[in-house]
Amino acid sequence: MHTNTAIKLIKRPTGGPITADSFEITQLAVVSPKDGEVLIKQQHLSLDPAMFGWMSPDTESYIPPVALGDVMRSSGIGEVIESNNPNFSVGDRVMGMMGWQQYYLGDGQGLNKVDAPLPNEAVLSIFALPGLTATQGLFNVGKPIKGETIIVTGAAGSVGSLVGQLAKAEGLTVIGVVGSDEKADWIVNELGFDAAINYKSADLDAQLAQHAPKGIDVFFENTGGDIQPLIFERMNAHGRVIVCGLIADYAKATPTPGPSWLNVIKKRITIQGFTMPDHFHQVPQLLEKLTPYVMAGQIKHRSHVLEGLESSIEGLNLFFTGANKGKLIVKL
Amino acid sequence: MHTNTAIKLIKRPTGGPITADSFEITQLAVVSPKDGEVLIKQQHLSLDPAMFGWMSPDTESYIPPVALGDVMRSSGIGEVIESNNPNFSVGDRVMGMMGWQQYYLGDGQGLNKVDAPLPNEAVLSIFALPGLTATQGLFNVGKPIKGETIIVTGAAGSVGSLVGQLAKAEGLTVIGVVGSDEKADWIVNELGFDAAINYKSADLDAQLAQHAPKGIDVFFENTGGDIQPLIFERMNAHGRVIVCGLIADYAKATPTPGPSWLNVIKKRITIQGFTMPDHFHQVPQLLEKLTPYVMAGQIKHRSHVLEGLESSIEGLNLFFTGANKGKLIVKL
Repeated sequence: MHTNTAIKLIKRPTGGPITADSFEITQLAVVSPKDGEVLIKQQHLSLDPAMFGWMSPDTESYIPPVALGDVMRSSGIGEVIESNNPNFSVGDRVMGMMGWQQYYLGDGQGLNKVDAPLPNEAVLSIFALPGLTATQGLFNVGKPIKGETIIVTGAAGSVGSLVGQLAKAEGLTVIGVVGSDEKADWIVNELGFDAAINYKSADLDAQLAQHAPKGIDVFFENTGGDIQPLIFERMNAHGRVIVCGLIADYAKATPTPGPSWLNVIKKRITIQGFTMPDHFHQVPQLLEKLTPYVMAGQIKHRSHVLEGLESSIEGLNLFFTGANKGKLIVKL
Repeated sequence: MHTNTAIKLIKRPTGGPITADSFEITQLAVVSPKDGEVLIKQQHLSLDPAMFGWMSPDTESYIPPVALGDVMRSSGIGEVIESNNPNFSVGDRVMGMMGWQQYYLGDGQGLNKVDAPLPNEAVLSIFALPGLTATQGLFNVGKPIKGETIIVTGAAGSVGSLVGQLAKAEGLTVIGVVGSDEKADWIVNELGFDAAINYKSADLDAQLAQHAPKGIDVFFENTGGDIQPLIFERMNAHGRVIVCGLIADYAKATPTPGPSWLNVIKKRITIQGFTMPDHFHQVPQLLEKLTPYVMAGQIKHRSHVLEGLESSIEGLNLFFTGANKGKLIVKL
């Protein structure tokens, strides 16, 4: 019998970089499935910014925090290696919240079989949390209209890169905000964004004026940061702000204030936050919406694959530095 | 023939109190109506916080600013004294945007006959801009649900006092934020609010905790100010913020920042601004919604009546000090 290497959360991060002392790497026994259970060998797991919320002590959040001493929460993809559940057979390829561990044992609840003829990295990059989040946020919250201008922060990130491509396919003018010239090049020349702005530039407002001469109708916010109020100031009447992430604030003890609500009145703006757990019951409809774009070849992705379960810990810090190039995935 | 005393806007306020040098009091000739026109002797006019927007140079606002040299914009009620328009007869009682002047000449567009058996002050306090704004904002933006908790700032104001009474009639727990103990007494003991908070108190957060033990579901914002972030922090999941006014910010050169959007995500909050000019086409439906509450005796009001057209100028400053007691109305 194998040993199951797992990583438990033992101390909550308190802001600043994620450090190894928040976690304990441990060896658990691999237990054979009882009646109704299924055992999965996880092959790839996904690192997502939502994890900062899951590690936080805040119990008001949309999903309960990971309890101290529990295996860290994450989604992943793998293969059924033993099954006592009639819905799963050995060899089935499945996705689900399997956590930071090599083997996952469960009753099948929350596991979904994967039929798409795509490699694991593509499945986790497009059809898992990023694709569902992008589809829900853009279409159901942002309600984009052909001809409008959308700006997406974190535009080279797992969600932002999909939002921009979906918006482009819908006929919007798409501006992406990124943190490096390499990412700017990628989203414009590979993904087809109309323009990119490096948020580290000095002339952010001038660049916004240049690329959004008609103002901004939809603002898909993944990051926060100094560009937030500048974008908000350029919103058009009846603009929509989709607040999906604020990675620039997650590691701060005191979050940066938001824009004054004066423009919310003057421009009759709607600012709406959302998180996927509220919408898991809509997953079939979201996949139905997303799949045709993927099948039509309109959605590209790139994965940044880290090797080995232990790389998950340090990997989280790539969200703060933005040094990752593509969807962060850990290969087990 | 009479003379028409009128007040023109000649200089835009730049923040701080409204001063007489922004206006010119002038005597215009009263001209008899030409074919299709109607002449009205205005009896009462309404002072509304929206006027600060109308005087501002910002052309992005929801309604064009008053041009320099034009008669200041306002709504009012009066009597038709000459008519060359088949839709209006001498003696008709009408409401409309008649401006800061004694006599109004127009083609009838935007004038509505008033049939309600209520004095002018009550009509301007309930069925004019305040009632339409309260009804649109509370029901169509805020979507209140029986049993929820709502907090209303500017709760003794023309809009806030109606919002609170409508919410109470709908079965919500209603907390009002006011600027004096006299107003607190009025909204609780006369209007039936469940609780009042004087925003000048030292222990605002403790009072919020006491009066909203289950958190806040709907936040109807009329004022801004230091209590705004404290209220926002106590919003429940799926809370709605209706941004209707920010009187505390209108006279500031630099508006106060708003709350961080972190809670917008965590609590999946919707913040939505609105202004009535977008919804004038819905006025019949809004009146249909509002009237039964009024007829059932569930809506009380009080008016603060200033005497004479010239009192309009200094009257605007009462919005900043909060020294008015009830809907500000000028008797001509």
